[in-house]
Amino acid sequence: MINKLTDKIKKTNAPIVVGLDPMLSYIPEHIQQKAFAEYGETLEGAAEAVWQFNKAVVDATYDLIPAVKPQIAMYEQFGIPGLAAFKKTVDYCHEKDLIVIGDIKRGDIGSTSEAYAVGHLGKVQIGRQSFYGFDEDFATVNPYLGSDGVKPFIKVCQDEKKGLFILVKTSNPSSGEFQDQLVDGRPLYELVGEKVAQWGASCMGDSYSYIGAVVGATYPEMGKVLRKLMPKTFILVPGYGAQGGKGADLVHFFNEDGLGAIVNSSRGIIAAYKQDAYKHLGAENFADAARCAVKDMAADIDGALKNSGR
Amino acid sequence: MINKLTDKIKKTNAPIVVGLDPMLSYIPEHIQQKAFAEYGETLEGAAEAVWQFNKAVVDATYDLIPAVKPQIAMYEQFGIPGLAAFKKTVDYCHEKDLIVIGDIKRGDIGSTSEAYAVGHLGKVQIGRQSFYGFDEDFATVNPYLGSDGVKPFIKVCQDEKKGLFILVKTSNPSSGEFQDQLVDGRPLYELVGEKVAQWGASCMGDSYSYIGAVVGATYPEMGKVLRKLMPKTFILVPGYGAQGGKGADLVHFFNEDGLGAIVNSSRGIIAAYKQDAYKHLGAENFADAARCAVKDMAADIDGALKNSGR
Repeated sequence: MINKLTDKIKKTNAPIVVGLDPMLSYIPEHIQQKAFAEYGETLEGAAEAVWQFNKAVVDATYDLIPAVKPQIAMYEQFGIPGLAAFKKTVDYCHEKDLIVIGDIKRGDIGSTSEAYAVGHLGKVQIGRQSFYGFDEDFATVNPYLGSDGVKPFIKVCQDEKKGLFILVKTSNPSSGEFQDQLVDGRPLYELVGEKVAQWGASCMGDSYSYIGAVVGATYPEMGKVLRKLMPKTFILVPGYGAQGGKGADLVHFFNEDGLGAIVNSSRGIIAAYKQDAYKHLGAENFADAARCAVKDMAADIDGALKNSGR
Repeated sequence: MINKLTDKIKKTNAPIVVGLDPMLSYIPEHIQQKAFAEYGETLEGAAEAVWQFNKAVVDATYDLIPAVKPQIAMYEQFGIPGLAAFKKTVDYCHEKDLIVIGDIKRGDIGSTSEAYAVGHLGKVQIGRQSFYGFDEDFATVNPYLGSDGVKPFIKVCQDEKKGLFILVKTSNPSSGEFQDQLVDGRPLYELVGEKVAQWGASCMGDSYSYIGAVVGATYPEMGKVLRKLMPKTFILVPGYGAQGGKGADLVHFFNEDGLGAIVNSSRGIIAAYKQDAYKHLGAENFADAARCAVKDMAADIDGALKNSGR
């Protein structure tokens, strides 16, 4: 799957993942009203609005991008109907040949991590049959519990040729509270980064491991250090756009081959119609605004990479 | 909710939470076969087996215990039908007046943590209506992302009078890989423990905060230190029984008032019928075995606490 990801990035020339994190406040009124008219102001109504919104965004952008990243929390808040919309979104993105990164940030002790891994990336055995639960291509994983919480995910990735992005340095303001603590003079996130590189060594695709890392765009200097520490690790970079990251900040997340990173933008794309730059398109044309925002983001990153000689 | 938890612990004299983590291999053949006969060897069939199994265990133990802790991964592995069984279990336990600790180990950046908090503990707003998604009473939270990933959960707990158990030192063998790293000469889990105590100070029930901590029974010496570091923090203690923790190891997780900790056992109770001690009851009577195992566990802990003068 990491080979497919790098191939698709080269083909689209867009190391971009669109974050499908549809808060109701991002969804234009006309979509919400239509869903509520059919299902009422209910969990089912909200889930339908989310699904219709996602479908329109995907239809407008799938040819420009390699991957999407649905954030499961935004679906889980609507209970079972919300999670059904998550699954429907995953399946639809696969139909459009998009790679799906499930942003689930799961992580637990061994047997429990195995259940998450099986549910999101693998197949669960039921009697003589086996079934995919959610069937994403990559999943994000929280490393706080250590190796035996991560290895069951790696095992399933090896069986299924899928991948992970493990949290190393997250994009939020207080990520440093624990992640930056110095251990023998070095921040904890570097130790985690080294572990990710070790775990990844046994899971190599053609050029990159299918065990990747998450490093926030909001910490470019740390990204530079981590890039060198984990040369074969693909980095998922959240925090571009709405959270403050810019194209020029991203350069050092990439290797000299121009690969090795994929940058996420969520509301910067899916709610682009609310921004000054795209407002003129109108809320009715939110999907066109998303398409424009993807093109602008791709140009911003491409320009920054070219400027840097990558 | 923390007051209700301490009241129920006093009333039952059992600081015990039954982990409803039903792997298919724990579920007796006759339950599985009945569910498969009705729904086939499908995700729906597995979910039905899980639900029927849980219901029987709850019916056999609810009068002896204050709380249950369903581990959501064990449901999530069966996709949407599995999560529907999780929700059905939560609702049924509420009918039986049990406190439900959702073992979800979620944690993300601010707005995303808010969505998880709303979905599991609070109500989500949809137009003029609001709905509970999963409606547990407590949730477990992963602290790796720092304060701004935890605070949205605390906010919802304040609004809803619910609670958290935040991972401090987990019960698994490699938990030390990151959690034990020394920061200025002190292990990281102590820093996390101090933060939990700080977060909890603004959320006090009568004697304990409703922001609790998770500390594994498998690390009794660390439990002793953390107990002193977080005197008003209720500790959820996993790792008793199958993972190796014994009653005598648990004493120092409790305060002098005999409170302050609640001990989880999962397969040690729900799959007790497979153990030598209860095997004679037969797989048909798995629920009776669970009831016996709860009584034995309560006596083990009660004896250890009495021996220690608590």
